[in-house]
Amino acid sequence: MSQPKMPVAVTMGEPAGIGPDVALMAWAARKDQSLPPFYLRADPGLLAHRAQRLGLSVPIQMVEPEDAVATFGRALPVVTGTHAIEDRPGEETSATAQDVIRSIEACVTDVRDGRAIAILTNPINKANLYSAGFDHPGHTEFLGALAERYWQPDRPVKPVMMIAGPDLMVVPVTIHIALKDVPSALTEELIVETVRIVAGDLRQRFGLPAPRLALCGLNPHAGENGTMGTEDRDVIAPAVARLQAEGIDAFGPLPADTMFHARARETYDCAIGMYHDQVLVPAKTLGFDDAVNVTLGLPFVRTSPDHGTAYGIAGTGKAKPDSFIAALRMAAILGNPDAL
Amino acid sequence: MSQPKMPVAVTMGEPAGIGPDVALMAWAARKDQSLPPFYLRADPGLLAHRAQRLGLSVPIQMVEPEDAVATFGRALPVVTGTHAIEDRPGEETSATAQDVIRSIEACVTDVRDGRAIAILTNPINKANLYSAGFDHPGHTEFLGALAERYWQPDRPVKPVMMIAGPDLMVVPVTIHIALKDVPSALTEELIVETVRIVAGDLRQRFGLPAPRLALCGLNPHAGENGTMGTEDRDVIAPAVARLQAEGIDAFGPLPADTMFHARARETYDCAIGMYHDQVLVPAKTLGFDDAVNVTLGLPFVRTSPDHGTAYGIAGTGKAKPDSFIAALRMAAILGNPDAL
Repeated sequence: MSQPKMPVAVTMGEPAGIGPDVALMAWAARKDQSLPPFYLRADPGLLAHRAQRLGLSVPIQMVEPEDAVATFGRALPVVTGTHAIEDRPGEETSATAQDVIRSIEACVTDVRDGRAIAILTNPINKANLYSAGFDHPGHTEFLGALAERYWQPDRPVKPVMMIAGPDLMVVPVTIHIALKDVPSALTEELIVETVRIVAGDLRQRFGLPAPRLALCGLNPHAGENGTMGTEDRDVIAPAVARLQAEGIDAFGPLPADTMFHARARETYDCAIGMYHDQVLVPAKTLGFDDAVNVTLGLPFVRTSPDHGTAYGIAGTGKAKPDSFIAALRMAAILGNPDAL
Repeated sequence: MSQPKMPVAVTMGEPAGIGPDVALMAWAARKDQSLPPFYLRADPGLLAHRAQRLGLSVPIQMVEPEDAVATFGRALPVVTGTHAIEDRPGEETSATAQDVIRSIEACVTDVRDGRAIAILTNPINKANLYSAGFDHPGHTEFLGALAERYWQPDRPVKPVMMIAGPDLMVVPVTIHIALKDVPSALTEELIVETVRIVAGDLRQRFGLPAPRLALCGLNPHAGENGTMGTEDRDVIAPAVARLQAEGIDAFGPLPADTMFHARARETYDCAIGMYHDQVLVPAKTLGFDDAVNVTLGLPFVRTSPDHGTAYGIAGTGKAKPDSFIAALRMAAILGNPDAL
């Protein structure tokens, strides 16, 4: 791919988690791995202390986003806007919540203002943010709200979570809800709306002119003609028919257990699961270290490493930057469709 | 392993499906692959015709089970007891249902009588058998009923389905039920009873003195402290505590999506899933061609290839014997614990 002329904006994420660790490690690996340029919106003091703790030689340089690409080769570009944050890896506190939120908002406006090509979000601790008044269910929903605020206040944004690895891309139609609530949450409308967004983003951002989308059944063996659950026949099949009528190459419902071996994966570009574990299990079985979380349906590109704050290993050097690096590459590719 | 002194008894299964194909192909590969000896309880005429159709040079020899090992090197040993069956691959009929059932019963009594070391069952068509009066939900339940009839009429047998591949062994606690019925079917008692059987069989048959059993959570992220479903905390965790109190090395509930990558799999011997797709998805993602269905909890060893009748390709040569061969090896190993 051609080198992006603009950087990826990286959020601070939970400062006591491994977000700073993996960002520092990734910068240190920038030459060996030919990484695209990025900057962090975080506290420079925290980063300098974390680098020292990790034994990494990482010069920190304060910049504006416009200078990040030129700086990236010799120093980690940091754009601030946060309070000073003590480096206390592993110590949960809501004292930093406002800075965590502000970093996300600022990265989004950077992209809107043409100062960054895409956003990579480091993991947050939702419980900390809730206690500071954050009223979105999670990171992704917050980004949806920011997209409405800054791009399209007149119509709702529906963010769609994709997990993308080198061997498999998946999207769950329902996500963070109890399994018992899945059958009632799963409507024909929700499936159609989700798959439309996936099809549109795969065309526009992933360079796939006619994406092939395989839908999982909800029940074992996709319900075996209604003998083990009726949703496959009564909800998913009609959704597939509607999508096909719109010219989208969707098919299914298929028995999920036989969809993810190597030969089966050749028959589609993205698997659409009906609930979280159905597709996150195969995605993380095949690509645990390099799976990336990509949010579709937004007016900007957002990726995220597919791990949490991992407080227990923050500052120890045990964190692995693989998923951050994969998310960074993905952000740069998707934010720069000319490079495809 | 030492060569078993007794053969594996193989059932006919659905005669119009690929059972005969894969059995013939496996026999043809017996030398290249050093396969343990087996015999088929099926119609010899059907097998001879099917071999001809497949272009396989397979001499068929009628024997009693006692002569199967000596015969196996030069001919496929067949023990009959069925009516003559026309070779009509792909043509569904319930006319052969009684012979299909009788073959299963005879293989079970062979094992009981010390004439065979273990049973390998070829796939059946349940719908055909139902119309002939078969009143068991499936193959596995029928074997459970035969175990009660021939071994222990005084107490119920609980057969437990395991899918075993080279990289992963899994057991689902609930199996062929609609997803919406899973949360209510999942009781502490059912989990405890299932895991006890798995632990016992892994000790006795698989040569694992202290099997490590990892239990999946039911909900995304194992419920995240009850914020996404309460069953993980209220049903699964108490079951794990009871099992641990009995000295069984069970642990969990764990978030299922991070349980199946290579490093995670090193931490347990068998993963216990709460429902079908949760564990059959990773099992078949990792080992589609060589995954084997093993029934635990029976007084005898039963394995089965992990595929169906595949009427559409019966008699065409397109069937692959990999799973049959894996099931055959597994039957011989589990039936001969001295070889471990």
